Amino acid sequence: MASESEGIASVSAVGGSEAGDGMTEENVMKIMIATDNHLGYFEKDPVRGNDSFLAFEEILKHAVSNDVDFILLGGDLFHDATPSQNSLKKCMDLLRKYTLGSKTISLEFLSDQTINFVDCFNSSVNYEDPNLNVSIPVFSIHGNHDDPSGYGLLSSLDLLATCGLVNYFGKRTDLTKLDIYPILMRKGVTQLAIYGLSYIHDSRLVRLFMDDKVVMKTPDETTGNWFNLMVLHQNRANRGLKNYLPEDILPPFLDFILWGHEHDCRIEPEQHFKHQFHVCQPGSSTPTSLSEGESIQKHCGILCVYKDKFKLEKIPLKTVRPFVFKSIDLHSYAEDYGFDEGDTENKVMALVREQVEKLISEAEEKVTGHPDQPTLPLIRLRCVYENEEHMFNAIRFGQEFATRVANPSDLIKFKKLVKRVDSKSDIKVDGKAIKDMMANTRTSVEDVVEEYFEKADESDKLKIMSTKVLNEVTNRIVNRNDTTAADSILKWVFFSFFQICTSLIYI
Amino acid sequence: MASESEGIASVSAVGGSEAGDGMTEENVMKIMIATDNHLGYFEKDPVRGNDSFLAFEEILKHAVSNDVDFILLGGDLFHDATPSQNSLKKCMDLLRKYTLGSKTISLEFLSDQTINFVDCFNSSVNYEDPNLNVSIPVFSIHGNHDDPSGYGLLSSLDLLATCGLVNYFGKRTDLTKLDIYPILMRKGVTQLAIYGLSYIHDSRLVRLFMDDKVVMKTPDETTGNWFNLMVLHQNRANRGLKNYLPEDILPPFLDFILWGHEHDCRIEPEQHFKHQFHVCQPGSSTPTSLSEGESIQKHCGILCVYKDKFKLEKIPLKTVRPFVFKSIDLHSYAEDYGFDEGDTENKVMALVREQVEKLISEAEEKVTGHPDQPTLPLIRLRCVYENEEHMFNAIRFGQEFATRVANPSDLIKFKKLVKRVDSKSDIKVDGKAIKDMMANTRTSVEDVVEEYFEKADESDKLKIMSTKVLNEVTNRIVNRNDTTAADSILKWVFFSFFQICTSLIYI
Repeated sequence: MASESEGIASVSAVGGSEAGDGMTEENVMKIMIATDNHLGYFEKDPVRGNDSFLAFEEILKHAVSNDVDFILLGGDLFHDATPSQNSLKKCMDLLRKYTLGSKTISLEFLSDQTINFVDCFNSSVNYEDPNLNVSIPVFSIHGNHDDPSGYGLLSSLDLLATCGLVNYFGKRTDLTKLDIYPILMRKGVTQLAIYGLSYIHDSRLVRLFMDDKVVMKTPDETTGNWFNLMVLHQNRANRGLKNYLPEDILPPFLDFILWGHEHDCRIEPEQHFKHQFHVCQPGSSTPTSLSEGESIQKHCGILCVYKDKFKLEKIPLKTVRPFVFKSIDLHSYAEDYGFDEGDTENKVMALVREQVEKLISEAEEKVTGHPDQPTLPLIRLRCVYENEEHMFNAIRFGQEFATRVANPSDLIKFKKLVKRVDSKSDIKVDGKAIKDMMANTRTSVEDVVEEYFEKADESDKLKIMSTKVLNEVTNRIVNRNDTTAADSILKWVFFSFFQICTSLIYI
Repeated sequence: MASESEGIASVSAVGGSEAGDGMTEENVMKIMIATDNHLGYFEKDPVRGNDSFLAFEEILKHAVSNDVDFILLGGDLFHDATPSQNSLKKCMDLLRKYTLGSKTISLEFLSDQTINFVDCFNSSVNYEDPNLNVSIPVFSIHGNHDDPSGYGLLSSLDLLATCGLVNYFGKRTDLTKLDIYPILMRKGVTQLAIYGLSYIHDSRLVRLFMDDKVVMKTPDETTGNWFNLMVLHQNRANRGLKNYLPEDILPPFLDFILWGHEHDCRIEPEQHFKHQFHVCQPGSSTPTSLSEGESIQKHCGILCVYKDKFKLEKIPLKTVRPFVFKSIDLHSYAEDYGFDEGDTENKVMALVREQVEKLISEAEEKVTGHPDQPTLPLIRLRCVYENEEHMFNAIRFGQEFATRVANPSDLIKFKKLVKRVDSKSDIKVDGKAIKDMMANTRTSVEDVVEEYFEKADESDKLKIMSTKVLNEVTNRIVNRNDTTAADSILKWVFFSFFQICTSLIYI
């Protein structure tokens, strides 16, 4: 509900100070928020292998030192659908070290746990298990990287839940209708409802919203006022209709959205232009691509909730390896550097070398002094070219910096200048507008194919399913290292195997 | 030490009864022993997928109902080196359900845990962790199926140890010398030393023993008398020199050997013909092959130790799927059934059908009435043939029994009669004899190759290493589902990659 949310302030947590209206420690819920930790990313790399774990450990340490009531994660705790034993072991080690211990938990769990955890394997919230001494409960939804897969359709979070280290929620097995029963918790006078929605393909989710198939099971009105927090893991930036979740589509009664999946840090809560809710996008804690967005300072945050008010304290992560990104347009230097006269390759390389040196200097400013921070920097210089003669062997060039950067082999990335009209990000549209646009616009090849087969007769419809299956298999194998995907998915559709072959030939 | 071990008796545990000499509950250590649970074996099979978990759960239930002090496992808890998330989850679920709880542990842990668990990741024995309520500690070595592998060289037992569900010991990283520091535990007047030796390739282990590189670090004499129990996971049956561990080689001061790896149940302790120790081979709790040995009634056992005496209570497992094995010599039926006149195939099939019917009847006798036992039986009829005309399509034949047996596709196995002199199993030889035989005998192609390269010059020696590596990679991929084996092993020897190629061409 929350008729009014307090403005955001990067102030110290309100928990410790006493205010006139009863805003004492026992009435304020302190929540560590973080997302997209991607544990295990690049784990076999001798230089960068431990980066994801370092950042996660820092987050856990902040949770302990700030004495939070619980930790809320927005998905993609692991990078791979089936994390290596090494990743699982390191994660469990960290959780056991920082979230178990002797501490009284002052959270009353009010909702029906059998409903909250219906598709998961938690028998109860971990801190109510008499056999475990939990000091900081961790709650998490899954993301697209750690969603259920393989034999038994388990998420790696199911493993953590099974051994009592994480309270996994927001998992669905029925994707034809989403009844979201919130986790209801009380601390003193503050009542919090957490609506968890683990990753679902954006297009499916948007359709469910449009078809009024998403039902938020708000608590009974007689139970008083609730701070309504939603945690989800979807595309937020407009990547084409049906390929993101427009904020407008979310129910306006919400107070706060913890948005996972997007890696850029936009942790400062942004109030929606129309609705009352604020959206908070902490971003990943470790970069999984050398893009500009990933080079923004990484953060976790402490969300303090008191009745219908909140404050967010941003905590910059100091163990994240320095990463500097820059994009230059080679063509714009052509005249000054005389690219077109004589030894072009060496001239371009001289320019690039100079630029890289600057970036390495900039990276030094990102060294925080934290004893655990790896200081060998990630550097990415994107060289936009028009003339192919301006290119050179980037891998060989990178070797010049082998001891000075963490990523010599992909330090330089060439990109052909494509003259086009950029699509704006973050177009804000309302539900009706989306429906209209959905009805009239084709935004991708998939849409065209889908529409075609929707209009086709019944026997043809099977073919599009097969194509989707193949897409899904490829995506899972390539992006999420889920080697059992083909086996499990194809088993499910074995009866349409011949249709798959037919459709492949047909396409 | 233990100068005298009490004879074995399949009696109820001594723990509850009071004897004149102080053999009271507080002085008797009760240990549930089991091995080779092979969790996850055949897990994707819709009929047999849960078998391994059912038997393991039964063992855990017996541990609880018999109020044992701890559980000791002899390796191969999991079937795969990297178990599926499904297997891990089910195992953790069971361990959490049956081994956590409120119960006072009356075991004093006396040895240095940092030494006992030196290569493992247990920070301490789990029941001393104040954050876990452990009712029955589980101790385990690894076997050849769940030995360390993949990135980070972790065993699945490391995962269980990390989340505090298992005390993993007996892992070695230095295989040039084995210093075995026993786990020392005391309960009342009984003192137990457990010497853990996780799986090592037999030939390497035998060589270490022969070279006096295995040192059992017995406790200080001033600490009193100890019951010396060794747990290991090696070939026991003679499978060729260097391919098993001869019992004679084990130090005679031991009292009791818990022998893992061998799947036949020989749980009744057998005293060594020369030494004082008894060897107890519980066998697997689930069959992983349809061999005669696996059809023997499966057991776990409760070992009661009082000072230097022990008793073993055998517990037949009642949830194991009925399995009947028989071998028939088709040729011996040829005359009676007139195989050589007319329709041979149908005549042989009629005989085989008759035999299978008998086996199905026999299997009914193995139905225990336990509510969790799957009753659809495993049946294996091995048909030894001399004449190939006596063969038929075994898979098609099996389909006749599709609803009556759990393994229709491999119900019948044809085996060509090979006339040869069988090698005896369990040849008992002493250490010197082994050394002599090792020096004079070549027992396998590997031995021949090894000897050749041992005599060859230095540059050739690299080649044999490459062959070994390839052998190891193949073994790990095929037998233990360790898909990262090639990656990790070949990375280790990447510098000899060209030698591998050369040696392959050469061979």
